[in-house]
Amino acid sequence: MSQPRYPAPTLDQVPEDIRARILEVQEKAGFVPNVFLALARRPAEWRAFFAYHDALMLKEEGSLTKGDREMIVTATSAANNCLYCVVAHGAILRIYEKKPLVADQVAVNHRKADITPRQRAMLDFAMKVCLRAQEIEDADFDALHAHGFSDEDIWDIASITAFFGLSNRIANFSGMMPNPEFYLMGRVPKQK
Amino acid sequence: MSQPRYPAPTLDQVPEDIRARILEVQEKAGFVPNVFLALARRPAEWRAFFAYHDALMLKEEGSLTKGDREMIVTATSAANNCLYCVVAHGAILRIYEKKPLVADQVAVNHRKADITPRQRAMLDFAMKVCLRAQEIEDADFDALHAHGFSDEDIWDIASITAFFGLSNRIANFSGMMPNPEFYLMGRVPKQK
Amino acid sequence: MSQPRYPAPTLDQVPEDIRARILEVQEKAGFVPNVFLALARRPAEWRAFFAYHDALMLKEEGSLTKGDREMIVTATSAANNCLYCVVAHGAILRIYEKKPLVADQVAVNHRKADITPRQRAMLDFAMKVCLRAQEIEDADFDALHAHGFSDEDIWDIASITAFFGLSNRIANFSGMMPNPEFYLMGRVPKQK
Amino acid sequence: MSQPRYPAPTLDQVPEDIRARILEVQEKAGFVPNVFLALARRPAEWRAFFAYHDALMLKEEGSLTKGDREMIVTATSAANNCLYCVVAHGAILRIYEKKPLVADQVAVNHRKADITPRQRAMLDFAMKVCLRAQEIEDADFDALHAHGFSDEDIWDIASITAFFGLSNRIANFSGMMPNPEFYLMGRVPKQK
Amino acid sequence: MSQPRYPAPTLDQVPEDIRARILEVQEKAGFVPNVFLALARRPAEWRAFFAYHDALMLKEEGSLTKGDREMIVTATSAANNCLYCVVAHGAILRIYEKKPLVADQVAVNHRKADITPRQRAMLDFAMKVCLRAQEIEDADFDALHAHGFSDEDIWDIASITAFFGLSNRIANFSGMMPNPEFYLMGRVPKQK
Amino acid sequence: MSQPRYPAPTLDQVPEDIRARILEVQEKAGFVPNVFLALARRPAEWRAFFAYHDALMLKEEGSLTKGDREMIVTATSAANNCLYCVVAHGAILRIYEKKPLVADQVAVNHRKADITPRQRAMLDFAMKVCLRAQEIEDADFDALHAHGFSDEDIWDIASITAFFGLSNRIANFSGMMPNPEFYLMGRVPKQK
Repeated sequence: MSQPRYPAPTLDQVPEDIRARILEVQEKAGFVPNVFLALARRPAEWRAFFAYHDALMLKEEGSLTKGDREMIVTATSAANNCLYCVVAHGAILRIYEKKPLVADQVAVNHRKADITPRQRAMLDFAMKVCLRAQEIEDADFDALHAHGFSDEDIWDIASITAFFGLSNRIANFSGMMPNPEFYLMGRVPKQK
Repeated sequence: MSQPRYPAPTLDQVPEDIRARILEVQEKAGFVPNVFLALARRPAEWRAFFAYHDALMLKEEGSLTKGDREMIVTATSAANNCLYCVVAHGAILRIYEKKPLVADQVAVNHRKADITPRQRAMLDFAMKVCLRAQEIEDADFDALHAHGFSDEDIWDIASITAFFGLSNRIANFSGMMPNPEFYLMGRVPKQK
Repeated sequence: MSQPRYPAPTLDQVPEDIRARILEVQEKAGFVPNVFLALARRPAEWRAFFAYHDALMLKEEGSLTKGDREMIVTATSAANNCLYCVVAHGAILRIYEKKPLVADQVAVNHRKADITPRQRAMLDFAMKVCLRAQEIEDADFDALHAHGFSDEDIWDIASITAFFGLSNRIANFSGMMPNPEFYLMGRVPKQK
Repeated sequence: MSQPRYPAPTLDQVPEDIRARILEVQEKAGFVPNVFLALARRPAEWRAFFAYHDALMLKEEGSLTKGDREMIVTATSAANNCLYCVVAHGAILRIYEKKPLVADQVAVNHRKADITPRQRAMLDFAMKVCLRAQEIEDADFDALHAHGFSDEDIWDIASITAFFGLSNRIANFSGMMPNPEFYLMGRVPKQK
Repeated sequence: MSQPRYPAPTLDQVPEDIRARILEVQEKAGFVPNVFLALARRPAEWRAFFAYHDALMLKEEGSLTKGDREMIVTATSAANNCLYCVVAHGAILRIYEKKPLVADQVAVNHRKADITPRQRAMLDFAMKVCLRAQEIEDADFDALHAHGFSDEDIWDIASITAFFGLSNRIANFSGMMPNPEFYLMGRVPKQK
Repeated sequence: MSQPRYPAPTLDQVPEDIRARILEVQEKAGFVPNVFLALARRPAEWRAFFAYHDALMLKEEGSLTKGDREMIVTATSAANNCLYCVVAHGAILRIYEKKPLVADQVAVNHRKADITPRQRAMLDFAMKVCLRAQEIEDADFDALHAHGFSDEDIWDIASITAFFGLSNRIANFSGMMPNPEFYLMGRVPKQK
């Protein structure tokens, strides 16, 4: 039940550019998140996936904070019942927001989460993109404008939701499992 | 967003028998889980609720372990998007099963959880009772018998699922919030 | 298809307090509704179930009439496709409301029922608690306040809905069948 | 809530052929079922509707009994939450099957109804045509063949389901209400 | 996968009145749409079906244009995943509206279609009748009145939707396939 | 209703590498598909999007034909009600499969499409990844193995489905409209 359906390559089996990035992540996180090796069996897809990820999640422009972005990912991944992404991005969300409880709240029911009204509106929109994007209307944009989101911010919210819908489906069909390290990250003060 | 919709009584405002039980729980857990005070504003309902709870969750007979029971509660509560119960019973599940990761797994997608095939069958049945009990057929009983569950065990699984469906709806409409203590319980070695 | 999945005890097999209550019901109704014996195979659960039932359905306080309460039960049970509860509580609803047609109307489509706008609002809320309690918002409370319901009334509506969601799931998984007597009750003048 | 949205013509306002049929029905039933006058405001549609109805419901060929046909109508109308058709056709079902309880059973949950396995298979198929006809596969035909239904019988089952899906939608949008007489028909011995 | 489940009669096997109509259609369209022969195996149903069809689709009164009507049929048939009706009526829609692109737009997502706000409101209502007629409220009528639709127009919209719901279910269960000619009709200038 | 929500850049406003690719596509197709300019307002996302697209859709390995791939895209996009992708990729599907009718069939109801049993199994799996990837089980892999698909082919099917779920959501929220040229492509012999 809990095994990946596809074998992951080892670090020495992956192309140089991919290995460099993975080592960088490992350096920073202290371990290699499974998604990096699981997708590396397909280098071209790996490169496109992380290029898209970085364009959306690491960009500097716009009013979405890094915590906002991870909050969208966590809510989307919960709606798609994706264990890997809820656990991994919930961890990052806790760290960015400096709120040890927020990831569980957003994952179980974002309406009950201890977040701002602006974040609530952001997640309501993300859930509509996630579950019924075909019904998005101008009124949905108006609701976000009322909270100060620009059209560029809305593009970010929708694209992050759409991108992690892709990620969730890949993790679910391939049986990707989260690293044990993620479960506790951001819940307790970081070990020195 | 995250406030209870009904004020909870304080400990000195509740009837003696209820206070006694609450003090006992506090002694054991180190804090008073919010459900005990939130429901105490209605003493008759409180007494019935916990009598039912105890009859299902504390009984000694049958083949369901305490971990099995909490696993059913966690899966049911996640299907009903009940923050209080996922967080509180997820904590107890981690402790009983001695598995720090299992509650998040069961809550996000029980099909990916690191549980036994018997537990998987148990949760599949619980999810059907939770979401479409009207479609339960003899074949659903057969699937459980094949894993060694007796008809009495099946009554337990179904009743726990049904009881926490009640609990989930009450927590959701009344805005019951989990105590912060629950989020970390069973994830790290207990503080001495 | 139409047989209970669990044998019910006979009246002489149940504990004294349970038998006393059952005899009292039999005296009043002229027969023993099946739920009383079906659940009696588990005395502790029986006691909790009826204590909860009585706390919600027999209480004197609040603005919900007995007819209102049975109307909530009938609508909830229909939404959960529970034959026992629709037939049994539909009968009681007809009697309390003195309306031979109302139970069928509420069970098939409460929007078409010959009920007051206040009752319609009450059932709209009950259906949301029944089917998607996780989405209950303050606006749902406002809609009931506009019809004169207090927060305590709303607690009653939600709790009755939640409690019969439990009851419906138990009746459905265990194959509880309604007594034939219920089908005609309240449809024709009572036999003297 | 319970008023038709369109005024019905009176008997003297309808064309001669329609009046003749209505008088015939009145003679037989003792009252004019509301559908006959409600649809008569559109004579051409009335004629087509009842021609289709009669072709499916009054035909002599095939293995479906009149009780079987009304059972399909009752189950379909319940699935479509159509008050008029559940009440009116439930009444006729009780009479044809000579079973005072069967209509309520079929309407609330056909899986619990006191019907034959053949009728159960017939209703399972009807429910699929009603709710997701696009998914009908050859295996669905096989399941009916196994109970002795011919392809012509299957055409009857599907067409009755489809025709009353039309009828249900018209009754629901136009606010058609059942005659009070229907509610009791077939529940008590016929008045002489 | 793509074969009809019931053999269609040949033109010389059908009753005279049906053959006359079919020849008339063939004369006009250049081919015999499969629905005419597929249903002709049941002459009484055929006559009722086309009488109903003509009463709704060929009537002169009311403010719905023929293009409006076919637009309702196309949207309804897409919601019901009916290949025959989407392809056949999409073709007629293109011709009546003189818009080669509109049928594909309406079939995939009517919210994105290049249609008038009045047509958008018409289709929103039709989709509610198609998918959840039991929830139609007075507010739904108000929304159409605001676009100038009369109650008679609303009857037309709802009845067309309901009738093609019948048609869609018959086509789907019986495996009716569209004539190849329909796919291209109205996309390119008519061949002389 | 039918206007893009975000202005697209003109060809001279986009970075050199993007312009080069667009000119190449224009050279081949005779026009610039709107997705190329619509996404070009975000060059980094554009590059990642098309790198991912090419990795999945242009790869040479594996047993999926180009027609198979476009068939998955068309079915996925229809399930997500994405007008742009159904129309654009339906066109390409018609061309690759040399079947002018197949795209409409797959888009409306893939169960009725004139495709091979192998393609049917492929689309069944794609629909599960699209709509409920969280429920993918080993049995779903077995069903594909039985048609000769390897695990690598399954990765392709799932990834294409997931990638176009991303694409569909972006097109839907941003209001991307298909070029008129796509509607007719592959339906008539190519103009010389």
